[in-house]
Amino acid sequence: MIKVGIVGGTGYTGVELLRILAQHPKVQLEVITSRQEAGMPVDELFPSLRKQITLKFTDPGKAELNKCDIVFFATPNGVAMQQAKALYDAGVFVVDLSADFRIKDVAEWQKWYGMSHACPELVAEAVYGLPEINREQIKNARLIANPGCYPTAVQLGFLPLIEAGVVDMNHLIADTKSGVSGAGRKAEVHALFSEAADNFKSYAVPGHRHLPEIKQGLFSIAKKQVGLTFVPHLTPMIRGIHATLYAKLTKKVDLQTLYADRYAKEPFVDVLPAGNHPETRSVRGSNYCRIAVHRPQDGDIVVILSVTDNLVKGAAGQAVQNMNIIFGFPETLGIEHVPLLP
Amino acid sequence: MIKVGIVGGTGYTGVELLRILAQHPKVQLEVITSRQEAGMPVDELFPSLRKQITLKFTDPGKAELNKCDIVFFATPNGVAMQQAKALYDAGVFVVDLSADFRIKDVAEWQKWYGMSHACPELVAEAVYGLPEINREQIKNARLIANPGCYPTAVQLGFLPLIEAGVVDMNHLIADTKSGVSGAGRKAEVHALFSEAADNFKSYAVPGHRHLPEIKQGLFSIAKKQVGLTFVPHLTPMIRGIHATLYAKLTKKVDLQTLYADRYAKEPFVDVLPAGNHPETRSVRGSNYCRIAVHRPQDGDIVVILSVTDNLVKGAAGQAVQNMNIIFGFPETLGIEHVPLLP
Amino acid sequence: MIKVGIVGGTGYTGVELLRILAQHPKVQLEVITSRQEAGMPVDELFPSLRKQITLKFTDPGKAELNKCDIVFFATPNGVAMQQAKALYDAGVFVVDLSADFRIKDVAEWQKWYGMSHACPELVAEAVYGLPEINREQIKNARLIANPGCYPTAVQLGFLPLIEAGVVDMNHLIADTKSGVSGAGRKAEVHALFSEAADNFKSYAVPGHRHLPEIKQGLFSIAKKQVGLTFVPHLTPMIRGIHATLYAKLTKKVDLQTLYADRYAKEPFVDVLPAGNHPETRSVRGSNYCRIAVHRPQDGDIVVILSVTDNLVKGAAGQAVQNMNIIFGFPETLGIEHVPLLP
Amino acid sequence: MIKVGIVGGTGYTGVELLRILAQHPKVQLEVITSRQEAGMPVDELFPSLRKQITLKFTDPGKAELNKCDIVFFATPNGVAMQQAKALYDAGVFVVDLSADFRIKDVAEWQKWYGMSHACPELVAEAVYGLPEINREQIKNARLIANPGCYPTAVQLGFLPLIEAGVVDMNHLIADTKSGVSGAGRKAEVHALFSEAADNFKSYAVPGHRHLPEIKQGLFSIAKKQVGLTFVPHLTPMIRGIHATLYAKLTKKVDLQTLYADRYAKEPFVDVLPAGNHPETRSVRGSNYCRIAVHRPQDGDIVVILSVTDNLVKGAAGQAVQNMNIIFGFPETLGIEHVPLLP
Repeated sequence: MIKVGIVGGTGYTGVELLRILAQHPKVQLEVITSRQEAGMPVDELFPSLRKQITLKFTDPGKAELNKCDIVFFATPNGVAMQQAKALYDAGVFVVDLSADFRIKDVAEWQKWYGMSHACPELVAEAVYGLPEINREQIKNARLIANPGCYPTAVQLGFLPLIEAGVVDMNHLIADTKSGVSGAGRKAEVHALFSEAADNFKSYAVPGHRHLPEIKQGLFSIAKKQVGLTFVPHLTPMIRGIHATLYAKLTKKVDLQTLYADRYAKEPFVDVLPAGNHPETRSVRGSNYCRIAVHRPQDGDIVVILSVTDNLVKGAAGQAVQNMNIIFGFPETLGIEHVPLLP
Repeated sequence: MIKVGIVGGTGYTGVELLRILAQHPKVQLEVITSRQEAGMPVDELFPSLRKQITLKFTDPGKAELNKCDIVFFATPNGVAMQQAKALYDAGVFVVDLSADFRIKDVAEWQKWYGMSHACPELVAEAVYGLPEINREQIKNARLIANPGCYPTAVQLGFLPLIEAGVVDMNHLIADTKSGVSGAGRKAEVHALFSEAADNFKSYAVPGHRHLPEIKQGLFSIAKKQVGLTFVPHLTPMIRGIHATLYAKLTKKVDLQTLYADRYAKEPFVDVLPAGNHPETRSVRGSNYCRIAVHRPQDGDIVVILSVTDNLVKGAAGQAVQNMNIIFGFPETLGIEHVPLLP
Repeated sequence: MIKVGIVGGTGYTGVELLRILAQHPKVQLEVITSRQEAGMPVDELFPSLRKQITLKFTDPGKAELNKCDIVFFATPNGVAMQQAKALYDAGVFVVDLSADFRIKDVAEWQKWYGMSHACPELVAEAVYGLPEINREQIKNARLIANPGCYPTAVQLGFLPLIEAGVVDMNHLIADTKSGVSGAGRKAEVHALFSEAADNFKSYAVPGHRHLPEIKQGLFSIAKKQVGLTFVPHLTPMIRGIHATLYAKLTKKVDLQTLYADRYAKEPFVDVLPAGNHPETRSVRGSNYCRIAVHRPQDGDIVVILSVTDNLVKGAAGQAVQNMNIIFGFPETLGIEHVPLLP
Repeated sequence: MIKVGIVGGTGYTGVELLRILAQHPKVQLEVITSRQEAGMPVDELFPSLRKQITLKFTDPGKAELNKCDIVFFATPNGVAMQQAKALYDAGVFVVDLSADFRIKDVAEWQKWYGMSHACPELVAEAVYGLPEINREQIKNARLIANPGCYPTAVQLGFLPLIEAGVVDMNHLIADTKSGVSGAGRKAEVHALFSEAADNFKSYAVPGHRHLPEIKQGLFSIAKKQVGLTFVPHLTPMIRGIHATLYAKLTKKVDLQTLYADRYAKEPFVDVLPAGNHPETRSVRGSNYCRIAVHRPQDGDIVVILSVTDNLVKGAAGQAVQNMNIIFGFPETLGIEHVPLLP
């Protein structure tokens, strides 16, 4: 059993970590912090956890996080970079679910996130926690930058094409759709039920923070500059990401085989048979990414469909997958939930 | 490991049984029948089960159900009564999730269900599978009539009041609300997204088939006639039942203690602290029934709020709970899912 | 043409007033106030009003409301009572969509609303704007207390029973369900999409502010004390109220005829044929209240089903109906929208 | 007043025509046919039309459609081509909301729609009813092929770019999202609430019937072959289309001015100010198409966002707009509904 702490347990990634870790056979939840809810039993804020978790929220100032083996940050951007260093120095493994350590170019990070980075020296240390790309590095990592929800679905979708070098890298398009939980549990008008239900819209078309993260990821594979148009949309569902990816083929290739082979050994990436269209609900509550590949009318445009649950493979599930890898547990331990359908 | 068969695996209770049984540590899925989909891999119809279940649907005529230890009927009303007898005679345990064996008064059953009963001789044998009332009988049952979704939530809500004899039994009211999955996976106009979304309505106010089932259950506790007004509603969510129950108090009683004591040892009934309002999502995907008790303005009307997931505690989860009891497994084995929230 | 002002045009009742008044043939919109959005074009906040309304929000301090013929308050509780007096004294008609002038017993109001009433002297002047009861008084009113959303649906549902004196007045039950827009356009966690979608719950069971309003209304008809249990629920839809009402019959009566006769001349109350179940979507975007009457199993409990659009008949539409009556316009002028279905 | 008939009044485009025509000041509804519902009052099937429409459905065999001035076909594909000729020959104007007369190349039509065309001789006569392109031809048309929902949103989005000749015509991408009402009111499993809610998926990626319609429309403007990748998605809302369009710029152009100028005089196309993102709800229940233009990071990819209500501008509203043009009524008569928000 390892001792686990969570910083910021009141948001959706926090409660999702709790859902998963409550039944992880190798985990003992030690501490969950929340400044605002300190002293309140976790299951009072989240009655879904009644009979599962008996912890109370601890004031961050009083939490003995350095007695944990691993600490997850499920905090807004800008928090982990303040606190990760002390834990890191104390030998505690850190998985940051926020964006603080994802972008290697600190100046670029500061431009997109609008703040000074408090801990640039750890950015180089951080391993980008996408196991399908970085599994070996994750095994030896002490600080994980857990990928964003869109970047997970988009990178897993594009990966085989880019590794194989079969598409025009200058004009990739990622048309992505997210459930509303991606906006977090903050009280904001645009995320109200009466605003978001029975409605569909794009947002941040001029530029979204996940753009540099995706471009960095694709660049690291392609080893050359990537031209990417990234358009996110808000769709009236709670969970789920659907990425529809477009690229122009530059070489002949058996796409279905390319994808099936690339992900044959990946426990959480599922390549659908030719002709299929993955649904977001087919991964609801699970750590799977399901992918289908199409080449409409046998033309030169390849269309990749990639779905995940933004709170699981796009956040908490992937964080636990990284934890499993770090501690040498079976990679799928505690994250084999069967998707909830209907 | 016990060998399990499912008759009728293409509806929502069927796929929910599959979700649960796929990871039940004592279960080996042997056969799933479907006339219409015979030969199709189960995970082709339900991609949510990919990487979890490799069975194909079997034609009912060719399924060797009598080699199973237990068979679940997840069929429309009228099927199990045709087929249960042969299995029963062969020593196979049967759990019927349909209504065929729920009503002891066969004439009454025939009136509400509009057909002749094909197997009245087994009706008396059948044990009504509500463990919180009938646990001891279930242990020795060979045929379980698994309760309906509304009856489970309503009976668990009224039970302590009726056992204690503290309310007017002539004027009980059950105002109930169900998610749309309660209507099943049949192609019907009224259950279309564009009909049921952003809409709320009652239905079957003159009389719903679950009325005699609930009245029989309450009668079996009260040992006298029960006057019940039962009004079901359709609410635009996928899963969930919310029962709002009204009764007139005839004696002074500490309601919170009454409920807390009654359900103190029940693993799946959760009495909320005084003042709470249970949400259906707090049980989504789980086998819990959460209950809160109110007496508004300290008057003589008690208001009970009872929520379940209609596909779990209201169907497949309760069926597996019954199976666990029958086979002497820990009652919670394989049905301890943490509710999915948000 | 009359000159119309709106105080507080940024909430859902405000934008609904704008939707209706933008095309009302006798109305010229003069001014819409908002402290926070002063200077912003209305159609920038609500793009649905582009090509329909060219006004900008005016700072309340600079708005010349006393040049209007009539002013609507679409403000949170506690605002109209501060400002209505000056307008009233200046001869401007006032329709208050908030609760400030609804309760005649000021002490009772103060208890439920948790503040001192700033203008008790006008409370007696105010006419409760439910035309189906108070049409004659409304004609001569200078200050209208526009009814709440639940109270409209509940009172219209109970009205014929109570006028006829055929039910036990001590044990009325109103089990009501509202769409989420009833919670307003405030940024609050409980009303987020990811909290309210795919979920159903009750709230305020110990006591809701609309309880005294409904009891006052029913008392004014019955001329005796009324025992009412009122339980509101939140349902995952944007608009709509569904009231399910229960009462015990004390006399024999032809319920269908009672209701049909009572509302025969009402333009906005629609009594459905016997056996029907009204859906909230059948009134979506319209000023109708549709009602059906049932007596299940010919017992002594009558069940009334009453649906409205909480933003129209439950707020803005009824406010315009009151305006039409005051100014002697045809009562249906500008509020004859056909419900939007699907 | 003109006499209007509707063939096939029981689907969503049918009831939407009824909603609009019920209050159109120049229209007298004469006849609505339905084989299945013949004899039933229209407002019994659609209670939203109570107090608005008193007609009954007429058996198609008995309907005297040739006494009408204009007949709308709101039928499945393959019906209008059987019946339009007789009406056409009798001098009745025909607006076909199905696909029967949209594709000029009859062989192409037969390939995509999988049936023989019963009336190829009228295909050439039919005018494609997109007023923003064909207004002059519509004025003199006797048979209108009313555009499909996706084609309307996509063509209006691409139109200015193509007319101006500023994009690479070989690699256009249309990533489109539709509400579920686009699937019609047929009882089909995939459109059930429990299948489509809280879910997002693409469909028909290999080829959708609206592809040839869009390509024909774009070709007619560009006068050269168009390479288009068209990917439709189903989104869990009732109404609304959101088209996200991608094209590669080949010339410098002020995109905002290009769009604003092109649509300056169009009553139903609304170009949003730079930087905006249109929401589908901003056109709910209305005949508007709202469009925004983006060039992310000042690159060479232009992103066009185009939203409509699929049942109004994408079907019934546009059909009435065509009727208005044909009869010389003001083009906006009876279709100026303010969108319903929230």
